[in-house]
Amino acid sequence: MTESKPTDDIANLLRSDLPPAASRWNGFPEFNFVGGNNDADSVPLKTLAACAQTVLMREGRNLATYFLASGPMGYLPLREFIAAKLALRASYPCDPADILVTTGSMQALDLVNSAFLSPGDTVIIEEGTYGGAIGKLKSAGINYIGAPLDEDGIRMDALADILQDLADKGIQPKFIYTIPTVQNPTGSVMPLARRQELLKLAKQYGIAIFEDDCYADLLWEGDRPPTTASLDPDGRVLYTGSFSKSIAPALRVGYLIADWPVMSRILPLKKDAGSGALEQMVLAEFGLDHFTRNVTDLTATLKGKCDAMVAALEEQFGASAEFLVPKGGIFIWITLPDGVDTTRLAQVAISEGVAINPGAEWSADADSGRHRLRLCFGNPDKQTIRDGVRKLAEICHRETGIPSRSGNIDH
Amino acid sequence: MTESKPTDDIANLLRSDLPPAASRWNGFPEFNFVGGNNDADSVPLKTLAACAQTVLMREGRNLATYFLASGPMGYLPLREFIAAKLALRASYPCDPADILVTTGSMQALDLVNSAFLSPGDTVIIEEGTYGGAIGKLKSAGINYIGAPLDEDGIRMDALADILQDLADKGIQPKFIYTIPTVQNPTGSVMPLARRQELLKLAKQYGIAIFEDDCYADLLWEGDRPPTTASLDPDGRVLYTGSFSKSIAPALRVGYLIADWPVMSRILPLKKDAGSGALEQMVLAEFGLDHFTRNVTDLTATLKGKCDAMVAALEEQFGASAEFLVPKGGIFIWITLPDGVDTTRLAQVAISEGVAINPGAEWSADADSGRHRLRLCFGNPDKQTIRDGVRKLAEICHRETGIPSRSGNIDH
Repeated sequence: MTESKPTDDIANLLRSDLPPAASRWNGFPEFNFVGGNNDADSVPLKTLAACAQTVLMREGRNLATYFLASGPMGYLPLREFIAAKLALRASYPCDPADILVTTGSMQALDLVNSAFLSPGDTVIIEEGTYGGAIGKLKSAGINYIGAPLDEDGIRMDALADILQDLADKGIQPKFIYTIPTVQNPTGSVMPLARRQELLKLAKQYGIAIFEDDCYADLLWEGDRPPTTASLDPDGRVLYTGSFSKSIAPALRVGYLIADWPVMSRILPLKKDAGSGALEQMVLAEFGLDHFTRNVTDLTATLKGKCDAMVAALEEQFGASAEFLVPKGGIFIWITLPDGVDTTRLAQVAISEGVAINPGAEWSADADSGRHRLRLCFGNPDKQTIRDGVRKLAEICHRETGIPSRSGNIDH
Repeated sequence: MTESKPTDDIANLLRSDLPPAASRWNGFPEFNFVGGNNDADSVPLKTLAACAQTVLMREGRNLATYFLASGPMGYLPLREFIAAKLALRASYPCDPADILVTTGSMQALDLVNSAFLSPGDTVIIEEGTYGGAIGKLKSAGINYIGAPLDEDGIRMDALADILQDLADKGIQPKFIYTIPTVQNPTGSVMPLARRQELLKLAKQYGIAIFEDDCYADLLWEGDRPPTTASLDPDGRVLYTGSFSKSIAPALRVGYLIADWPVMSRILPLKKDAGSGALEQMVLAEFGLDHFTRNVTDLTATLKGKCDAMVAALEEQFGASAEFLVPKGGIFIWITLPDGVDTTRLAQVAISEGVAINPGAEWSADADSGRHRLRLCFGNPDKQTIRDGVRKLAEICHRETGIPSRSGNIDH
């Protein structure tokens, strides 16, 4: 018989390669410029409540079965609504039978990664991109290469060079992960001609495209180009979207679209017994008319907040902060002078109630992102945006000497 | 420049080790005796709808932020309700701060597996157990050993032998996965004394216990013993439960409870930006009083269906079908004579509209489960249960000669 062990030994049974321990949650910081949070006053409460009432009384008995009465791809009326929305708003006709409802688009990312990627595989991402996507690739042991961006998204000349360089080395990348419309973090929109070029390159090199369209409904400047997926006759594009940004992030409802030969291989990896049915039912009942009205109002509100943040940045940081004015969405991607380390700045700032996304976490090459940062303006009100940017400028000035002056007052 | 590839090449980029492709969903079979589906008429529609209305109008603005205003452990009022429910119904006092809301208890299983298990590790499970748990262990490359069961759950003499045998071989198992109350698939309940013995053995061998209590609220025979977790002074027990069986399975809301030293290592693995908020809010608003009334009524209904299935089995299979009459829950675990292969039977039966869980998929040792099967009675009505069991007996007789006679009529 083995000897008795100390009672705290079950922590010793944990895997040795786990990430660091979480801390207890302490509430939101006063100036919360991180995360995909949205405008609280724009959540369509009354309509959501009415939809919940209607759909529960009509179809709630289906909650007694897993997957409602729609099978593992998700609640059919929601898939039909998604198809109608994409046809109307994104010039993207698709078959509800090929739409998989996911628990947020994050699950879509996980599914696509699990289906395509083994440790050591290579993918191409955008040089600045969604930090969560980078984190997933990193923890899965995937090599990722950042394609340079300009104000129209991925530079196709640079992408062609990367693809040829990999081909010369005998490396077959699996996919290009791109956010072409309201790019995260730059807020840019890839024009139609570039999308066509992207497809041509992907075809030429036998590579898939993973199009993340999470923010596209929040476009306020210019027409929304057709999705890359809609331009693709070959089933080469995997497409994901979400209601997190257009309705409410705490509703965990996203979707993944792929042709059945690929989707049929991805679906068995979704071993969660379905995504939350009540949220699916309520969103389906919400429907296209309410959706259109909601994003029209929400986008106007977000543009107002964006304008407030742009003005605050110009006032507080002056020429020290370079950024593209976003064409939609909820964030601004800011480049500070080379000497500023935003990873360090973020640590100091959070201790004083200002949360920012340091650029290293949003960059394929962490070093080249070290003097950049992402600020989200979706949740805080305009006064909080102004006060928070002022406070950030003060902290940044104190820590780095930058900005040298702000608000027309020398520091 | 590389040569152009065929347009169907993205399927060739998929991992080579994926599970088989899914088929298109074709609706439920006529006699659906699989899955944790529940009684449709028992879904508390009106109350859920009223709760949705109330909570959305009161707190819906919080949907604009990830995690509502409660942080990554889940909606605080729901965690408080879970704590109150466990204190009242399971003699299990616990701190809402240590309760993690999960997307069904399946996510709790995934999280615990991810936190503790590396390929090649060993765990102990029950010889008959939840097929989904076996599937997860198998696909993660984990060795699992089935502990023999009797009508009171795991046999402690046999478990002691297994643990000592592993110790002699220098193998440290990570945890014992057990469903002590309304065991899946046997429907048995482990008495208090055995729970204490289980804890003693676990402590002696320095191993964790993973207690799955998903079905415990559906107990109809005898008092519910305290959870194993409540008897554990050492934080050795990881505990999971769910609202899938007590309210509705399509609501994907479960929970995982562990002391913070372990929970703080598990939480960073939950990278889904939170579980569905609307479902959490509605269930929290539902609350303990409604919950108690609901499970009281539901359990009576399920017992009626169980009685119908027991009578149908006795009538149609006679002495050929051996089973414990379950003490609660939604399923019966049936042993047929050795010669019957239920994996094959299930294939034939589904083609004729009868879905069953073949015992091999619910058994640690697939071979020893090959003449067993699990039948779920939660969703079909009593007449469907009677008709379906008759049809299954007919198919089984035709395919295997067993039962030799049924319904007092010689085949």
